[in-house]
Amino acid sequence: MADKILSISRRTRKTPFTPRVEAAGVKGYTVYNHMLLPTYFNTNEADYWHLCQDVQVWDVSCERQIEVSGPDSERLIQLMTPRDISRAVIGQGLYAPLCDEYGLLINDPILIKFSTDRWWVSIADSDVRLWARGIAYGLGLDVQVREADIWPLAVQGPKAEELVSRVFGDEVRSIRFFRSKMLEFRGTAMMVMRSGYSKQGGFEIYLNDLQLALPLWDELFNQGADLNVRAGGPNLIERIESGLLSYGNDMNFTHNPFECGLDHYMDIDADIDCMSLQALRAIRGKHVHQLVGIVFDAVVEFNDFKIEVDGVQVGDVRSQVWSPGHLKFLTLVMMKRDFLASNDSVTVGGKLGNIVDLPFTFDAVS
Amino acid sequence: MADKILSISRRTRKTPFTPRVEAAGVKGYTVYNHMLLPTYFNTNEADYWHLCQDVQVWDVSCERQIEVSGPDSERLIQLMTPRDISRAVIGQGLYAPLCDEYGLLINDPILIKFSTDRWWVSIADSDVRLWARGIAYGLGLDVQVREADIWPLAVQGPKAEELVSRVFGDEVRSIRFFRSKMLEFRGTAMMVMRSGYSKQGGFEIYLNDLQLALPLWDELFNQGADLNVRAGGPNLIERIESGLLSYGNDMNFTHNPFECGLDHYMDIDADIDCMSLQALRAIRGKHVHQLVGIVFDAVVEFNDFKIEVDGVQVGDVRSQVWSPGHLKFLTLVMMKRDFLASNDSVTVGGKLGNIVDLPFTFDAVS
Repeated sequence: MADKILSISRRTRKTPFTPRVEAAGVKGYTVYNHMLLPTYFNTNEADYWHLCQDVQVWDVSCERQIEVSGPDSERLIQLMTPRDISRAVIGQGLYAPLCDEYGLLINDPILIKFSTDRWWVSIADSDVRLWARGIAYGLGLDVQVREADIWPLAVQGPKAEELVSRVFGDEVRSIRFFRSKMLEFRGTAMMVMRSGYSKQGGFEIYLNDLQLALPLWDELFNQGADLNVRAGGPNLIERIESGLLSYGNDMNFTHNPFECGLDHYMDIDADIDCMSLQALRAIRGKHVHQLVGIVFDAVVEFNDFKIEVDGVQVGDVRSQVWSPGHLKFLTLVMMKRDFLASNDSVTVGGKLGNIVDLPFTFDAVS
Repeated sequence: MADKILSISRRTRKTPFTPRVEAAGVKGYTVYNHMLLPTYFNTNEADYWHLCQDVQVWDVSCERQIEVSGPDSERLIQLMTPRDISRAVIGQGLYAPLCDEYGLLINDPILIKFSTDRWWVSIADSDVRLWARGIAYGLGLDVQVREADIWPLAVQGPKAEELVSRVFGDEVRSIRFFRSKMLEFRGTAMMVMRSGYSKQGGFEIYLNDLQLALPLWDELFNQGADLNVRAGGPNLIERIESGLLSYGNDMNFTHNPFECGLDHYMDIDADIDCMSLQALRAIRGKHVHQLVGIVFDAVVEFNDFKIEVDGVQVGDVRSQVWSPGHLKFLTLVMMKRDFLASNDSVTVGGKLGNIVDLPFTFDAVS
């Protein structure tokens, strides 16, 4: 398809950083949680090389924080996820699939615990707020569920630690992966976590004061001038090379966590009160699809995202990109497990693709 | 803001009609219920004049149908809406705000009843499926809630009745507003309703067979060649002139139905089992905002969508467009009722705007 214009309105919500994103020359957006998410500023490839070498500031306000508070908070959170949350550490990010009573994926957020009665659910692209509110209403739980006034700003790339520590102080350097500290910017404490949707290293700053949005952005650019800081966004090439999954793209509400390889983020044999436990135990080992990588030496044109063998569909291509670093065409594909059982490659349009586990390990395939 | 590209992926779902929409030269999309919604093909203004004179085919697949089925269907639907659904007629569209236990708007769908234990909720842009599923789970209701495999196609404009009756037969002509008939296309019966998101007249065809998507599109264009049929989409100018509300734009989850002027679509004094009833009774007459129209003679530039008087914000501009037909700048604004009580106009940037009730009645203001 040729490029199309995004029609922007109040429904595709802007963020506190939008004025700076626009001034930085954003070229593309997507819509994520009903909000604008910048996707590229130069080209996907130029942005990719820059991300891997320097440091970028990303407006990821669309990572909305669904705040669950009140005495029944922990009960509600545990009902929604098959991951055992009893060992969650305060201020720690916990990647946790949310599943319904059929064991199907509702979302794959990062959970952040502040206390037993206050959590954030840092969501991917679906209205978890509505699901949580519905459950809480139906069960008569004593909780409040709301979209918090929080706008995450990510700083990503090999020079991110240097930049964020210039702005928030050297305490930044001792933050471990998926851990956070409350650090001050202009007298206001906000959460800074070592996290982000790339594997180039970096942090996410959970802005909690609208008035500080533009000053924070500007300070990062002032302090980062010699680091070649630029505006960026989640990068299609980098995230696929790194095997970072995207809910709605690589999997959706028709898939279960086994199909997505999320087995390690579930504790379905634990004694937890979770609505999906029974279904997931029944599905285990019997799921139909498996998300895998298929690596081609050249770009492949798929017919309606399908991979067919002898006229039978064996795969559904969820994401695809040419990797300029590895000179491979990388695809994330929901493949029939039947097919995988006896094949480690597949031919599409005369081009052979090697089927590999995720995340990609390039030594093994190149 | 200058035009930006929409980054399209599997998460921004295409529809069965997308190949034809692309071939017709779509220029803009928005994302609605995680799906592509075409917005314009020529310019908003050229599309507007054409819509008002001829007939257009709109891919509104993004009007997802949330199907609620099972013995507790009617109970679940009634819980979600303060509109009394006991008088719903089978096959009739019923505009019904959905409200949570705080009386806030979750969505403003069209309800369609097929039987007491099977309904469609034809939704605006929020994941009603998740909310309904949560409520049903919590209350242990005997229902299934799913996104049905239905892709609505709208035919809108003064020549729509002629075109749709050429394709589905003369029975089309006797369908009354918001009523429907099951009519055949190539041997498959599908629902055809007199409805659509314009006031130019027309129908929505609820396609229920993927294989018929392109044949149906093509047949409408073949039969409509002499009617000057074109591809189109919900038109910003027409829908604002007509006072058609857009959830997420004109109002969102922070507003209640009174603020949106939806009083007539609620039966809050009825004896119905609805979760928002108590809250709505308490809010009635005490709501803070009111959605009104403000009509200016020239285009007005707002500062961050705000209307301020003496440094105090009195309004939040939700939608705005220049009307080429009426030569007025039309805005939909959430105004403070305090301000409305003693003002029937407001000045922005030196330009006087007349405050009017919705929908606009142009005789009264021009």
